[in-house]
Formats: sequence, structure tokens, C-alpha cells
Amino acid sequence: MAAEAGGRGGRCVRLSAERARALLADVDTLLFDCDGVLWRGETAVPGAPEALTALRARGKRLGFITNNSSKTRAAYAEKLRRLGFGGPAGPGAGLEVFGTAYCTALYLRQRLAGAPAPKAYVLGSPALAAELEAVGVAAVGVGPEPLQGDSPAAWLSAPLEPDVRAVVVGFDPHFSYMKLTKAVRYLQQPGCLLVGTNMDNRLPLENGCFIAGPCAGRAGRAAGGPAGGRAGRPLRPLTGRPRPSPPAGTGCLVHAVEMAAQRRADIIGKPSRFIFDCVSQEYGIDPERTVMVGDRLDTDILLGVTCGLKTILTLTGVSSLGDVQSNQESDSASRKEMVPDFYVDSIADLLPALQD
Amino acid sequence: MAAEAGGRGGRCVRLSAERARALLADVDTLLFDCDGVLWRGETAVPGAPEALTALRARGKRLGFITNNSSKTRAAYAEKLRRLGFGGPAGPGAGLEVFGTAYCTALYLRQRLAGAPAPKAYVLGSPALAAELEAVGVAAVGVGPEPLQGDSPAAWLSAPLEPDVRAVVVGFDPHFSYMKLTKAVRYLQQPGCLLVGTNMDNRLPLENGCFIAGPCAGRAGRAAGGPAGGRAGRPLRPLTGRPRPSPPAGTGCLVHAVEMAAQRRADIIGKPSRFIFDCVSQEYGIDPERTVMVGDRLDTDILLGVTCGLKTILTLTGVSSLGDVQSNQESDSASRKEMVPDFYVDSIADLLPALQD
Repeated sequence: MAAEAGGRGGRCVRLSAERARALLADVDTLLFDCDGVLWRGETAVPGAPEALTALRARGKRLGFITNNSSKTRAAYAEKLRRLGFGGPAGPGAGLEVFGTAYCTALYLRQRLAGAPAPKAYVLGSPALAAELEAVGVAAVGVGPEPLQGDSPAAWLSAPLEPDVRAVVVGFDPHFSYMKLTKAVRYLQQPGCLLVGTNMDNRLPLENGCFIAGPCAGRAGRAAGGPAGGRAGRPLRPLTGRPRPSPPAGTGCLVHAVEMAAQRRADIIGKPSRFIFDCVSQEYGIDPERTVMVGDRLDTDILLGVTCGLKTILTLTGVSSLGDVQSNQESDSASRKEMVPDFYVDSIADLLPALQD
Repeated sequence: MAAEAGGRGGRCVRLSAERARALLADVDTLLFDCDGVLWRGETAVPGAPEALTALRARGKRLGFITNNSSKTRAAYAEKLRRLGFGGPAGPGAGLEVFGTAYCTALYLRQRLAGAPAPKAYVLGSPALAAELEAVGVAAVGVGPEPLQGDSPAAWLSAPLEPDVRAVVVGFDPHFSYMKLTKAVRYLQQPGCLLVGTNMDNRLPLENGCFIAGPCAGRAGRAAGGPAGGRAGRPLRPLTGRPRPSPPAGTGCLVHAVEMAAQRRADIIGKPSRFIFDCVSQEYGIDPERTVMVGDRLDTDILLGVTCGLKTILTLTGVSSLGDVQSNQESDSASRKEMVPDFYVDSIADLLPALQD
């Protein structure tokens, strides 16, 4: 039996063992989102390490695509190995990992090629700075930036670094009005790029939930995604019941800089295809022989559909079959694209097809 | 000769002395924006104090409508008197001033009526807090909020105040990721309101310009306005020439909170009609006998048109006749509304009609 779907107009059928066998015969590369797919927080999804080990044993090439900009490739590889997902160690560690910190660095290397000693003003983590430094882009601005003075004139006269060619916005717990003001001032300089690692409006859940209380896979995760904001789709109304929610994500910070600078950022992470282009350049991907596996319709599945990959939704994370049905029944062409070819309860469901 | 225009479909004719005489005969109230209309920074527009003095002498009622949330009514009244614009002193000082700090307080008083000892979490100035306190809403959170801990779990376990019924976002130079996270946590509580003082993406120019260099009335002021952001109208592309620009405004901060909380804020300032409703309640306004005078098409003039007032654009501030023409020629129904009935080079142009 041949795999029943692929590309646009996915039907979201359950990936039975029989269908999984047919699908896997046709593919040589599987790309995985991490949070909500392989693990939640520091706990592996049961059976997921075994599934990946079996895929590796069958000679499948694996890649890990994450919007998290707070870890280097090497740090992600270490977590993959620690939780039992294997992968190369030593000098090759991290070659399977495509995070937004690394891919942002590749993007800047391309866009700033030829600039002597370029610098980036980084609203982000030390990991993001480290990936930029590794490709020859000096990172300035990481860490707290105290408010200087008590008037607009004072804020605008704080010294700027020379040779800053880009403002990079990732996840930054030290984000502040002073940083926003500096970012805008850099962006007024000729040719200064504005790059956002991703547009997620919330951080990923840590250990499934942050705050004590009823904790399901979807607890507190907003349905929003990259199109949130004033003129985007309707925001979720306040419901009568409080529920815990993860803290604000990178998208909120990118949005603030975009509005202040009156410019759009180039977005690296899912569902932007730039992150897939990075994988494609390093892996030599044939989209027809590649599967994208993820837990979010609006990032993972949309990326897969946009790039012509086969797509599998796993129900261990954010999106539910109800969300799929809403998209299938939507009048919106863009939401209709956010439908996977297949779904599994967990990627452990791949095991029977791999153990015969 | 009767005034030639009024209401929607303004024609933007020059307000000659003859037309001004006809117009003023038909109106009893004039509402003025302040920055760019009466003054720039600490300097009055030449002839503007005399024009207002003459209007007062003719028995016209004046009101001052500003999106600035960083001053109390009393502080604005003091500035008006200091720069020669007159107005009541003593206990009645500030009765002519409708700023977003005061109007936000009125809004909360209405919405929180009946709540015992309500509090608001305020991302904003001490002035905003003072106006809230004056109507019985305790303000918490003003000033710096240091990052507590180095993990999402730590950020989410910082203590919250009890009885917070609203999150108010005004201009806050101490805005930070920690404040954003606290705001979202308050907003998850049942019935907690989200209120933004205004959506301006930049602060008003101070003294016409902030940074040494060529300084015209429009220098560095972005054309964006309240609809900025990812899914709004196209953002201005980067041009090759650097130009100074005022720092980020309240709208950027409101946007970040909206995206993080996945909710729309209730916006008080221009062009939202709530600020006009405040004036109307206190003044008993007849829109047909009222003029709105401002320097911005997307806030002042749009507010006037929306509320059925006569409108005058003054060219001493942000918007130009070129901007008017662009709106007139636009295919967008909303931009076509941003056309005033009349324009003047400066409100000093009203003087000849008042001195006969």
C-alpha cells in the first residue's frame, strides 16, 4: 500500500503501522520538531528514543528543527544524547541540529558577506551570540541594559557601537525599553538589517506545564502563533477561568521592535522557509523523500506543507485533532494549508513499522 | 459666506480669514491637540498663544486633547499657562485638559464600578498612577522591575499583588520582559481588563527634533500610527539615508502585551473615540458646533471625522499637505476619512479673523 497523501491538501489520516511502512519506504530523511514531539521539558516522550534509534538503524537521516534560540547546536545535541535520542558526539555533535540561533548566524553570514568585521546588536541569549561569533559576526548588547537618564534626549544620546550591521531579536529576558530604543537607533543606520529568530508568542512549555495545577499537553498554550497582534487574526477572548500559561515568547519582542522601527523583520524560524533552506543546503534534501514531524499546525505542519514535504502531526504537544478539523472546515485558504498528511498519538507509534 | 465643509469627505481648503470668520460664527467649542499644534517641546508656536487668548475673549470654550500619558491634568495646565495659553489656575486648573492618563482613570472608574478596593498593574508613569489613584484605583508596579531568577519557572513564581482588576499600559521607560510576564499573569485572572493609553508608535518630537542635524517639522516621524505591525499596513522600507527619529512610543509596548496575552487592549487615546466621549460627558458637546484642531491626520483628524466634528489641520507638526493628497487619492476608505475640512499653516492664521 502506498502512502496516501503528500503535499498540499493533506487529509490527516491516522498513520497505521501499514501506512507507516509504506511511507518510510518512500522517504530517506525525517525532520523533527523537539519540544512536544521528542520531549517535554527534561522528560522524553515514552517510546520516542526507541523510535529514533530504530529509524537510525534503518539508515534514515534525521534532522532536528527548533525555533528555540536559547541553545547552541552543541547544547541541543547534548540534550538529544542525554535523553536517549543518539546522534553524533565529538566534533560532529550538533550537525543534525537546526536551531534558530545557528540558522540566524548562517543568514547573517550570507547577508553580511563582504562587510569587514561586522557586528550585530543582539537582543537575545549568550547562545545566540555564540553562534553569531562562530561565523564571524561580533555580537554586542547581550545581557541587561540599564535605563540611562530620565528623558528621551538622554536615552537617545547613549553611545552606540560602530559597525553594527544588523539588529537580531531572539528570546531575551533582559528585553527593555532602553534596548528597544537602541535597536531603533541602529536600524536607522543605512543598510542595517532587522532579523527575528522566530515569531512564537509564547515560550515552549517546560515539563508540560509551569505552574502547579491541572496540566494537559495543551495547557495554557495560546492558539495564536506568528500572525498574532492587532491587525492579525482575532485574539482569544478572556475566559472566566484562570489557567496557567507559559511566559511571553520571542514574537512579542520582535513585534515591539518592528512597530518602533516601522519595518518588518526577516524571520528565520518556522514557519518561515529560511530554516528549511538551511537544512536543504547542508543535507541536499529531496522534498518528496522527506517528512516533517511536529506538534504545531501553525509552525511545523505549515512549514512542511509550504516546502512540499510529507507531514505528520503528533498529538503529544500543542495542536489537537480538533484544531485540524477547524482548519479543514475553515474558509481561510491559509488555515486549510495547516493540515497534515498523517497524525500519530505519539512518535512511538512509528515503532511497530520499524520492528518487523 | 458659510463654512464650506464639515463631517466626512472633507475637502481640505485653506482656512482664509473670511472662511475662519464664518466657521467661528458656527462653533462654540474648539478642541486642540498640543504637541505640534500649540508648541514643540518647550517652545510655543509663534502667534499660537495670542490666537487662543483671542478665542477665549470671544467666549469660545477650549479643550486640550493629548495622547501623552506622562503628565497629569494639573501638569498640563501648568505648561499651558507657562507658555502663555491661559486657562484656569487654582482648584479648577486642568479642567480643560483631556489627557490619556486622566481619561484612562475615568474609563477604569466606569469599568471597575462596584469592585471593592480595585488595583491596576500599571506599566506607565507616576502621573498615570496619580490619575488612577485620584479616582480610587490603586496603582501597583510603577518603576523598575528587576528580572527575578534565570528561568521561566522563576519568572512565573514572582509574587503578584491581590485584587488587581486591570493592566494599564502607558508610556513606560522601565518596560521590561519581567513586566511583560507579570502583565500576562494578571491578565489570566478572571475579568482582568487590558487598557492601553494610546497606540502611537513614536514619542512626540521634543523641541522639534531630538538629535543635532537638519530639523524640520516632520523630521524622523514615522508615518505609521496605530495600525502598525506585522499584519497591518506595509511598513516603511529602510532608506539609504540615516535620519534622527524619536524613540519608541506606547503603541509598541501595548502591542507586545497584546501579543503575549493574545488579547486586544481597550485603547483610550486618539483616534479611539473614548477620549472624545470623556470630553463630551464633561462639556456637553454638540459635535456640529465643535472643531478639532490637530497636526496628525491619523489621530487628530481621524478622531474629528469619526466623531462628526469640523476639522482643521495645522502644518506646524507631523502631517503635510502631501499626506492629505495621498489620502484623498487613496483607494482605501479608511485613508479617505483622514482628510480635514480645512488647513492652516499655523493656528496663528486664526488671528486675523479674531482681531477685527
